Amino acid sequence: MNSVVVRNVPRADAAIVKALGELGVATVHEAMGRMGLMKPYMRPIWPGAQVAGSAITVLAQPGDNWMLHVAVEQIRPGDIVVVAVTSDSTDGFFGELLANSFVAHGAVGLVIDAGVRDVKALKEMGFPVWSRAISARGTVKATLGSVNIPVVCAGAAVKAGDVVVADDDGVVVVPRLIAAEVAKKSAERNANEDGKRKRLAAGELGLDMYKMREALAQAGLKYVDDLES
Amino acid sequence: MNSVVVRNVPRADAAIVKALGELGVATVHEAMGRMGLMKPYMRPIWPGAQVAGSAITVLAQPGDNWMLHVAVEQIRPGDIVVVAVTSDSTDGFFGELLANSFVAHGAVGLVIDAGVRDVKALKEMGFPVWSRAISARGTVKATLGSVNIPVVCAGAAVKAGDVVVADDDGVVVVPRLIAAEVAKKSAERNANEDGKRKRLAAGELGLDMYKMREALAQAGLKYVDDLES
Amino acid sequence: MNSVVVRNVPRADAAIVKALGELGVATVHEAMGRMGLMKPYMRPIWPGAQVAGSAITVLAQPGDNWMLHVAVEQIRPGDIVVVAVTSDSTDGFFGELLANSFVAHGAVGLVIDAGVRDVKALKEMGFPVWSRAISARGTVKATLGSVNIPVVCAGAAVKAGDVVVADDDGVVVVPRLIAAEVAKKSAERNANEDGKRKRLAAGELGLDMYKMREALAQAGLKYVDDLES
Amino acid sequence: MNSVVVRNVPRADAAIVKALGELGVATVHEAMGRMGLMKPYMRPIWPGAQVAGSAITVLAQPGDNWMLHVAVEQIRPGDIVVVAVTSDSTDGFFGELLANSFVAHGAVGLVIDAGVRDVKALKEMGFPVWSRAISARGTVKATLGSVNIPVVCAGAAVKAGDVVVADDDGVVVVPRLIAAEVAKKSAERNANEDGKRKRLAAGELGLDMYKMREALAQAGLKYVDDLES
Amino acid sequence: MNSVVVRNVPRADAAIVKALGELGVATVHEAMGRMGLMKPYMRPIWPGAQVAGSAITVLAQPGDNWMLHVAVEQIRPGDIVVVAVTSDSTDGFFGELLANSFVAHGAVGLVIDAGVRDVKALKEMGFPVWSRAISARGTVKATLGSVNIPVVCAGAAVKAGDVVVADDDGVVVVPRLIAAEVAKKSAERNANEDGKRKRLAAGELGLDMYKMREALAQAGLKYVDDLES
Amino acid sequence: MNSVVVRNVPRADAAIVKALGELGVATVHEAMGRMGLMKPYMRPIWPGAQVAGSAITVLAQPGDNWMLHVAVEQIRPGDIVVVAVTSDSTDGFFGELLANSFVAHGAVGLVIDAGVRDVKALKEMGFPVWSRAISARGTVKATLGSVNIPVVCAGAAVKAGDVVVADDDGVVVVPRLIAAEVAKKSAERNANEDGKRKRLAAGELGLDMYKMREALAQAGLKYVDDLES
Repeated sequence: MNSVVVRNVPRADAAIVKALGELGVATVHEAMGRMGLMKPYMRPIWPGAQVAGSAITVLAQPGDNWMLHVAVEQIRPGDIVVVAVTSDSTDGFFGELLANSFVAHGAVGLVIDAGVRDVKALKEMGFPVWSRAISARGTVKATLGSVNIPVVCAGAAVKAGDVVVADDDGVVVVPRLIAAEVAKKSAERNANEDGKRKRLAAGELGLDMYKMREALAQAGLKYVDDLES
Repeated sequence: MNSVVVRNVPRADAAIVKALGELGVATVHEAMGRMGLMKPYMRPIWPGAQVAGSAITVLAQPGDNWMLHVAVEQIRPGDIVVVAVTSDSTDGFFGELLANSFVAHGAVGLVIDAGVRDVKALKEMGFPVWSRAISARGTVKATLGSVNIPVVCAGAAVKAGDVVVADDDGVVVVPRLIAAEVAKKSAERNANEDGKRKRLAAGELGLDMYKMREALAQAGLKYVDDLES
Repeated sequence: MNSVVVRNVPRADAAIVKALGELGVATVHEAMGRMGLMKPYMRPIWPGAQVAGSAITVLAQPGDNWMLHVAVEQIRPGDIVVVAVTSDSTDGFFGELLANSFVAHGAVGLVIDAGVRDVKALKEMGFPVWSRAISARGTVKATLGSVNIPVVCAGAAVKAGDVVVADDDGVVVVPRLIAAEVAKKSAERNANEDGKRKRLAAGELGLDMYKMREALAQAGLKYVDDLES
Repeated sequence: MNSVVVRNVPRADAAIVKALGELGVATVHEAMGRMGLMKPYMRPIWPGAQVAGSAITVLAQPGDNWMLHVAVEQIRPGDIVVVAVTSDSTDGFFGELLANSFVAHGAVGLVIDAGVRDVKALKEMGFPVWSRAISARGTVKATLGSVNIPVVCAGAAVKAGDVVVADDDGVVVVPRLIAAEVAKKSAERNANEDGKRKRLAAGELGLDMYKMREALAQAGLKYVDDLES
Repeated sequence: MNSVVVRNVPRADAAIVKALGELGVATVHEAMGRMGLMKPYMRPIWPGAQVAGSAITVLAQPGDNWMLHVAVEQIRPGDIVVVAVTSDSTDGFFGELLANSFVAHGAVGLVIDAGVRDVKALKEMGFPVWSRAISARGTVKATLGSVNIPVVCAGAAVKAGDVVVADDDGVVVVPRLIAAEVAKKSAERNANEDGKRKRLAAGELGLDMYKMREALAQAGLKYVDDLES
Repeated sequence: MNSVVVRNVPRADAAIVKALGELGVATVHEAMGRMGLMKPYMRPIWPGAQVAGSAITVLAQPGDNWMLHVAVEQIRPGDIVVVAVTSDSTDGFFGELLANSFVAHGAVGLVIDAGVRDVKALKEMGFPVWSRAISARGTVKATLGSVNIPVVCAGAAVKAGDVVVADDDGVVVVPRLIAAEVAKKSAERNANEDGKRKRLAAGELGLDMYKMREALAQAGLKYVDDLES
């Protein structure tokens, strides 16, 4: 691995990023054709946050957070830092100090396939983090990784500048080049769901609303009155 | 597998279901002789809910929530839907839309050995869910399963109409035919625990209250003053 | 295994225990040279508690909480009970009844490499617990273990009287004989971090503050303008 | 839980059991409509064995093998012992001594949702075991369970007398009352697969043999020459 | 997701693929700068195989092997099929029938982030498979995925035509465009290791051979005669 | 953590080490009162080896095998190296090169709570390893740990010079000071088991041989003819 920091990161339009963040993970993921979702072990360290940002990607070594310090210099307001590690690690790569630094440079959140610490302080600061673990274990600064190269984070491929959306349902990655299209489809889907929600809340059956009865019968579903009948 | 929907579900008496729900999982599980508990990976998606209901059982395929739509039609007020999957899946089988439908038909909760999404909305609606995962991953509607056949959900055998009790401690299944008896024993146990709680809170040792000292000595327990003595 | 209860537990000075508790897990763990941390699967059953206490150690058998009852008699005000199990178990070894007993004798918390139940009641009582699981599964009282012998709990070696510090970041064990020294180093580290926090919050880069640029260059880190350049 | 040993176990016809054993797990599982399979964490402790037998079911407590000793008396030649545990346990419930006892009474194998030990000796004896773990950890004989009651083992419901088939692919449970029918369907499936195997081995595409092309096109599958085309 | 099958797959030179296969996973992974390794849960279903091939990539849905049938038509002699699934699944996507089809079209192996079955038959055929699980659970053919699009398999990004090397140590992916360079570096590394191996086997210390003593001392390593000294 | 290498390691008598190795893990673990066993995730990388040796302990950092090189100099013939890591890691800390070095200095095996690679070569060399994982992932040599300090490895406390016994059932640690006593008790247990084995193999029930019937009845075990009786 050549260790590099890529300085120029093309970012999606801020209005599109904002729109994707407001639509939320489940809607965006569906509108993308169910691609780009990180593994469900990625959980928010405190509930309720919902953000979107342009990805600054970091490839770090297990138990070594050196490249997070390097990454700070590349953060622009509205960015979200996405950290992949070359092998599974739960160590605490990030805590209050780095969070202060991230905030000072405009980061809106952190997505890390490893652990973080100082969770109480991070919650008080309102800095949102999605991680695989919480751990006080400290890390060293000894081995290089890279910044803004393509990475695989929690099972999802991420390129610097992709739009990352995160909320209580998890984290989804929207490739930058299709972000506008995905935002449009997500908004349409959202509008569409609103109508369905009302009909379902009024008691209409999905069986009828989605016209599933025929397909179910054709697939062989039988209705019986009792288990032994 | 023949895919069937069983329409008639015998349910336990509503007063008994209510009583079991108020007694809570740990007490009911103990009163049943420590049977019927689901695996501890089943966790509430938001804390504080405590419910009981009659089970509508669903056997679904991995990544396919078709049968949840089918199940809605079978829900009666006071029911709790219990979803087993034919192989391990963390996908998001259930979200805000289905929740609206469930609520419209009177469901009091969902227990699902898979994932759910829209957790923020579900929390705002006050709809309680116990699941193995939270995931925005969408599911297809392609392959049949069954509704109201006996299933194994998170390690527990469940029949349609069994009473399912769930709270922050997990989920327990009470076979319908013994529900009245279990409710009675649970209430007795609860009453009994109240007295013990007060004595322990006053400083009395369990060693004395439960008269354990002789059994411990007989089993060979030694007291020493210091580690090396 | 000879089953013993060791009665005399040398404890650290109360002021030092208090100081360690206020400094928190991450700081204390760092000041100790990154030793003594329990595995990150040990999580608080409710967020926000931060405690320190002298360890009463318990070695229990899987699915058997007999020795927790034995341990109560050894608790002195300010103690924290640390339970290891001879093989992995998620059963509910501890609940509201034992919590009342623990509190009556002055315990400030429980750290258990197994499950607990009655989490809602424990939260209402304000009794803090760090555990590997939440489970309503009851335990038997059939097989001996020991109290106040050295144990391995969640990957950390613990001796009776060691200082255990626990908060939202996890659990760390400070050997009693170095507790004073660790408290001193932790306080120094804390003071030192305060200055750093302010500089980072003001936008100074860690790269500059920690003077990392030269070491990074020497290790071979390259900066490029674009990915293909 | 009332602890009982059920003495009379109705067993399937020996010829049917034999036939199911020869057909193997994958074929039988398919012929049953993909029901009855245990979780894939159940693995043979040595490769190559393929057996079927009538289930003697055991419900044991974690870390306690007392009921395995009780079960031996109920074994008849051709039986396979199926052990469920009331909560997850990896302890070594079974080893060389019990294996000698099982063999003396005619057991053809053991399926256990826990651990076993003496694996080298068991392999030398040729006694096949499917388990979730290998562990030398000994167990106590302190708490009752039951024998020949319905259990859930590794996610599958098992009744005494059901036919259990196990090989390198895992373990499947065939309810006794449908065993003859499943054996017949399994044999048909097997015969049917033979023809398919030959055609596929000769290079015929499944796409053509199963006539999938139209359905794929209808579902929307596109063929492109190059990724960017 | 648009479901596509990409027909043209640029492949690396056969001699380079062969060379990489003979060098093995650990050497190739090191020569690549420690990139491209799949997660260690990917294990061979039988030991001893060592292969390399050009990747035919498959993106499948959980519990659905339809796209594996589609992929067969794209296999050319020397290819290795790499299957990613859109969410975690252990189901048996592949068995003896598909293996016969794969072999007929020249596939040299299968790498699948899911389960396989018929492991005994696959071993007898000598067809090598690396998978996350073994499971007899059958899959449906209901939902589209894609063939030869870029995928993430077991944490590694794979493009169609990349060289995949697999042996008892795991699976590594070599991007096609650097395959020649990696093969060259791997061979050099191998030659270099041979000399080291002989010196170490003769008793020379790595401390001396790698000249580590000074760096260790500088980092602060102390030698003491006894633990308390 | 002060990083130290302790040079003088008191070792148990070679005859006692040899005797413990021949008795095997399960017997020794029982004779010790069921203490000292490592977690069952520690598995041999190839089956059939059975060894015992004096522990050279290593505390390493995640993804960093520097201290294994340091440890080689401390190996004496008959030693077994035991590697703990400060946080969970599956990386390949050890392979063919280090194995040649270990063998040259007389090591009889490796027990490592992390990963190893070159498993085919290690098997061909006949060098036995027990590990938590197999992984080709390389490690760095950047951060100090210690050699021959007390460690916790896979849940077991190990001191340098303790006797480590390992076979297909796992790994057990015998404190050096009680090794002679444990060897004696193990031999007695072994002799005792031989008689039991013969009686059980002849068909005698454990129920009778161990005189369990009365205790079972007293505990409340009931025998019934049929499930519904």
